[in-house]
Amino acid sequence: MDASTPLEPSVTILRLGHRPSRDVRVSTHLLLAARALGARRAIYTGVRDPGLEESVRKVCADWGGEFTVEHASSWRRVVREWQGKVVHLTMYGLPIRDCLEQIRGDPSEKLVVVGGSKVPGEVYGLADWNVAVTGQPHSEVSALAVFLHELYEGRELLLVSPGARLKVVPMAHGKRVEGAASDL
Amino acid sequence: MDASTPLEPSVTILRLGHRPSRDVRVSTHLLLAARALGARRAIYTGVRDPGLEESVRKVCADWGGEFTVEHASSWRRVVREWQGKVVHLTMYGLPIRDCLEQIRGDPSEKLVVVGGSKVPGEVYGLADWNVAVTGQPHSEVSALAVFLHELYEGRELLLVSPGARLKVVPMAHGKRVEGAASDL
Repeated sequence: MDASTPLEPSVTILRLGHRPSRDVRVSTHLLLAARALGARRAIYTGVRDPGLEESVRKVCADWGGEFTVEHASSWRRVVREWQGKVVHLTMYGLPIRDCLEQIRGDPSEKLVVVGGSKVPGEVYGLADWNVAVTGQPHSEVSALAVFLHELYEGRELLLVSPGARLKVVPMAHGKRVEGAASDL
Repeated sequence: MDASTPLEPSVTILRLGHRPSRDVRVSTHLLLAARALGARRAIYTGVRDPGLEESVRKVCADWGGEFTVEHASSWRRVVREWQGKVVHLTMYGLPIRDCLEQIRGDPSEKLVVVGGSKVPGEVYGLADWNVAVTGQPHSEVSALAVFLHELYEGRELLLVSPGARLKVVPMAHGKRVEGAASDL
């Protein structure tokens, strides 16, 4: 039941307004969650952060897959030039259950916009869908996780990352990693 | 379809090894995700952090619900004295799809242990279930989100928080909050 072919529709994450000093851990978690749950690529705006890019690249080198991350100077240009549809995750949007079928049914490549500190009002107008994973404040990481899990209907949990140097051997109690110098 | 009665089984989060300087934003995201997705309570170990507790309490005061957060000095005591079952979220565990039915079928209160920087090996032995949301490195925030979403089968998305001072009015494009001095 493992799947090594990429999931459809293809998802690129656009992370807005990264600030290296404050956001590095949350942005890292966000990008790794995007990768682990089936997104293919991430773009981030705000301050360019080679450390963030390097830590994601290191995970990809160890754990496989084709996920890439790049910096863009203008979120507006990324959104405007996007060829597919744009989903913006926000607690102010429509409940995920009310728009998910429509999003799943649209075969175009999706740009999933995920806010940083302050999302420009313009984003709400430019997005094809503003989607709320609850109308409660929580985290862009949890919102993205539930969104991808719903979009891919759990198939993302079966993904296999080609080219992995390390691979977890699932265990009821304990830790085992194939390819590691020793068990962690 | 809104639900204002708490979800079953009841979930308490145990966040391990909080370090205020490094973890404050990720721990905040984790606790807010726990609250928004139906957990009732959180306990954290590591360094006591009044700022973390205060920011969660402020969200509860504004957005409602009964979620509480408290510090404990010994994770071992919390786990050992727990009356229900213990779930540990870890990429080294068994795939969520393979143990979820068993967890859902167990009516006892669940303690969901979520690692910080370095999880003591003992946790893997003490947990009733070590559960992996993929065998890939990502984030405790995304792992918890997918776990709660699966455990509650999406019912957590319909929760209504009693006593909320603020409430989002879902919109296709824009932001509206009832109870706020003005639209944000």
